[in-house]
Amino acid sequence: MKVSLTRRYRFAASHRLHTPRLSESENQRVYGKCSNPYGHGHNYSVEVTVSGPIDPATGMIANLAQLDPYVETRILEAFDQKYLNEQVPEFAPEKSLVPTTENLCRVIFQRLKGFPLAHLDRVRIEETSNNSFEIEESLDAAA
Amino acid sequence: MKVSLTRRYRFAASHRLHTPRLSESENQRVYGKCSNPYGHGHNYSVEVTVSGPIDPATGMIANLAQLDPYVETRILEAFDQKYLNEQVPEFAPEKSLVPTTENLCRVIFQRLKGFPLAHLDRVRIEETSNNSFEIEESLDAAA
Amino acid sequence: MKVSLTRRYRFAASHRLHTPRLSESENQRVYGKCSNPYGHGHNYSVEVTVSGPIDPATGMIANLAQLDPYVETRILEAFDQKYLNEQVPEFAPEKSLVPTTENLCRVIFQRLKGFPLAHLDRVRIEETSNNSFEIEESLDAAA
Amino acid sequence: MKVSLTRRYRFAASHRLHTPRLSESENQRVYGKCSNPYGHGHNYSVEVTVSGPIDPATGMIANLAQLDPYVETRILEAFDQKYLNEQVPEFAPEKSLVPTTENLCRVIFQRLKGFPLAHLDRVRIEETSNNSFEIEESLDAAA
Amino acid sequence: MKVSLTRRYRFAASHRLHTPRLSESENQRVYGKCSNPYGHGHNYSVEVTVSGPIDPATGMIANLAQLDPYVETRILEAFDQKYLNEQVPEFAPEKSLVPTTENLCRVIFQRLKGFPLAHLDRVRIEETSNNSFEIEESLDAAA
Amino acid sequence: MKVSLTRRYRFAASHRLHTPRLSESENQRVYGKCSNPYGHGHNYSVEVTVSGPIDPATGMIANLAQLDPYVETRILEAFDQKYLNEQVPEFAPEKSLVPTTENLCRVIFQRLKGFPLAHLDRVRIEETSNNSFEIEESLDAAA
Repeated sequence: MKVSLTRRYRFAASHRLHTPRLSESENQRVYGKCSNPYGHGHNYSVEVTVSGPIDPATGMIANLAQLDPYVETRILEAFDQKYLNEQVPEFAPEKSLVPTTENLCRVIFQRLKGFPLAHLDRVRIEETSNNSFEIEESLDAAA
Repeated sequence: MKVSLTRRYRFAASHRLHTPRLSESENQRVYGKCSNPYGHGHNYSVEVTVSGPIDPATGMIANLAQLDPYVETRILEAFDQKYLNEQVPEFAPEKSLVPTTENLCRVIFQRLKGFPLAHLDRVRIEETSNNSFEIEESLDAAA
Repeated sequence: MKVSLTRRYRFAASHRLHTPRLSESENQRVYGKCSNPYGHGHNYSVEVTVSGPIDPATGMIANLAQLDPYVETRILEAFDQKYLNEQVPEFAPEKSLVPTTENLCRVIFQRLKGFPLAHLDRVRIEETSNNSFEIEESLDAAA
Repeated sequence: MKVSLTRRYRFAASHRLHTPRLSESENQRVYGKCSNPYGHGHNYSVEVTVSGPIDPATGMIANLAQLDPYVETRILEAFDQKYLNEQVPEFAPEKSLVPTTENLCRVIFQRLKGFPLAHLDRVRIEETSNNSFEIEESLDAAA
Repeated sequence: MKVSLTRRYRFAASHRLHTPRLSESENQRVYGKCSNPYGHGHNYSVEVTVSGPIDPATGMIANLAQLDPYVETRILEAFDQKYLNEQVPEFAPEKSLVPTTENLCRVIFQRLKGFPLAHLDRVRIEETSNNSFEIEESLDAAA
Repeated sequence: MKVSLTRRYRFAASHRLHTPRLSESENQRVYGKCSNPYGHGHNYSVEVTVSGPIDPATGMIANLAQLDPYVETRILEAFDQKYLNEQVPEFAPEKSLVPTTENLCRVIFQRLKGFPLAHLDRVRIEETSNNSFEIEESLDAAA
């Protein structure tokens, strides 16, 4: 049997969807209103799922008292109340990585995958009440 | 790594659970109040999950601006504000396919699986706040 | 100080918005897809709010064990899994009362206002996740 | 009896909380991380409540088919995917009106109060899942 | 116009519904399973609503940075992860105040009403996803 | 294709996180406020997922009218309004099994896995709005 725990964190940030790899008209076609030069924002809900054996003494996979500061330091301090395009290094203009939520999943997974107390299975981000994105190891990779 | 996006759509419809394959008393036993000859209805929430590589230029798996009209045409126009038993061809009386949410998952998956811009992974339908149903490719089929 | 309690009940039903008081084209203009002759349906969430003094012995305004059967008998048995236009007397065709959620609020308030153990303050109905309707005594009436 | 309807609209926007009326250190003390010069953002959920008599023919207070374009034109087109401080005239720098959600309630109420088909009772805005703000006529004003 | 803000706080606690003012059989009749001598528990969601004029400089009714520690000290530290019947003084056995959510509203309102920066309008507590209770000044008291 | 249904059940219970396998100071370090000797409580939401072929006659995987009493008898009657540490046999003091939500998942999965009408895929428990835990067969075990 596999047991996992999922904990939800939240941050509020702004971003602009625009890439120098495309012409202005292509940016407009691909991103529409999201390419507004002033940016816009979201409340992001990030669900972090980790799994592992249940410690027979404590009954826990991983102590939330240890997961929380790990996420606080690596994610919330870096992303909360920030403009992603300018204030998160992975999305700095010279990187040409557009801060879509797909890419945000990758960046957050990368930042969290070293969590030493359990295996990081999945990162899921809700960008709006109707849109969510998730990243997990593929079955092929796991095999 | 596998990245997917899930988008929620909603429609309101009515249905009746009843099948000519069973006797009246069996219909009553299996479906209870849901076999009411006048039908009843639900707000259905449909979550469509697609996956695929992230386009390095756009940072997207698939543009929601392209998924939305695909779902709008194939699902929302056909199901919203409709009586499923009479107004959706797959559930027409001569088909003997009861519009349970299990079968609704299959019909919707079938209608969406040709989406050309990403792989359709899963369709999940919430019928009420406590009941949901989902369809996805089985691991065996994927292997 | 005023103390009140609100309890949520749920039922699933279908309805058709159409009135003989208007021409077909007016029905179409006013109700759009909701005038579909086959009807459609919703999951209705009904919040019933009652208020009154807190009983010093029990610490309660009204025992939910007494409110529940009152609502069960008068509302849930009558509306759940029903076609409102044909199966709820207040909306019977000869009454010409269209089963909009505004009118549903009135009908439900009327059915519940005799609750003997606390004062019925308000009935609020969610028809979809974005639409809700409520009825309460107006301040003028209360004065 | 008073009957009202509430409809939820959503937009995503960014803002910065900062005012020239206060010193930098006071801005920092009052707004903390929200005074980040790059701004940040939210998904705003706006609930608009209107009331009035139920039309005996249609069974409606006001047709949502008429409320929607009114809100679409005056609110969603103006606020969605925008940077409030620079792109909404009421919050333009020379106005010195800080785009807190309190002030956003006032601006939105002002923009909607002329709705001709029902009385605007209340505007409620959820800024995050834990914070909401609302504006309504005070009882004194109503008396 | 009246502007208010509502902020949600959460705590998890256990309680037992039982009163020495009633016989054992009456306790059983009134409280049913809730009179279990071992107690049981809930996740309580507490919404605190305060109102007042918007400060023209800051654009705020009251700074959440000042409301939060006020609620933290008076409510969360006292109630979170506690057994209400034994660990919250107002519900100590000698007080004979049963920790129903009605009484919990009164106790929390009493603890918060001295908030110096805005007027406490209302305390609303969700005990379960279907039950909520609220306390506010009555219109008579306000007049 | 694989089709599954998920149904949500709810119960309210209290527990204490504390183990005789650890010293008092270790208990305090691991469980913090959750080791409060009086216990505390939660509203638990339990989602039970079962899968199987859709019956061609009924259009169902498993009739909820049969799943509900199975869960009612084995889970809700045993856990609702109870103190897990003393009133659920698997967590009895002599078992030294701490009633963390990880262990609660295992106990509930064990109690439900014999459901005769469909395959039990997964049990997911929400302990608070931000924390959830789930148990499912691992891919290795399934292979």
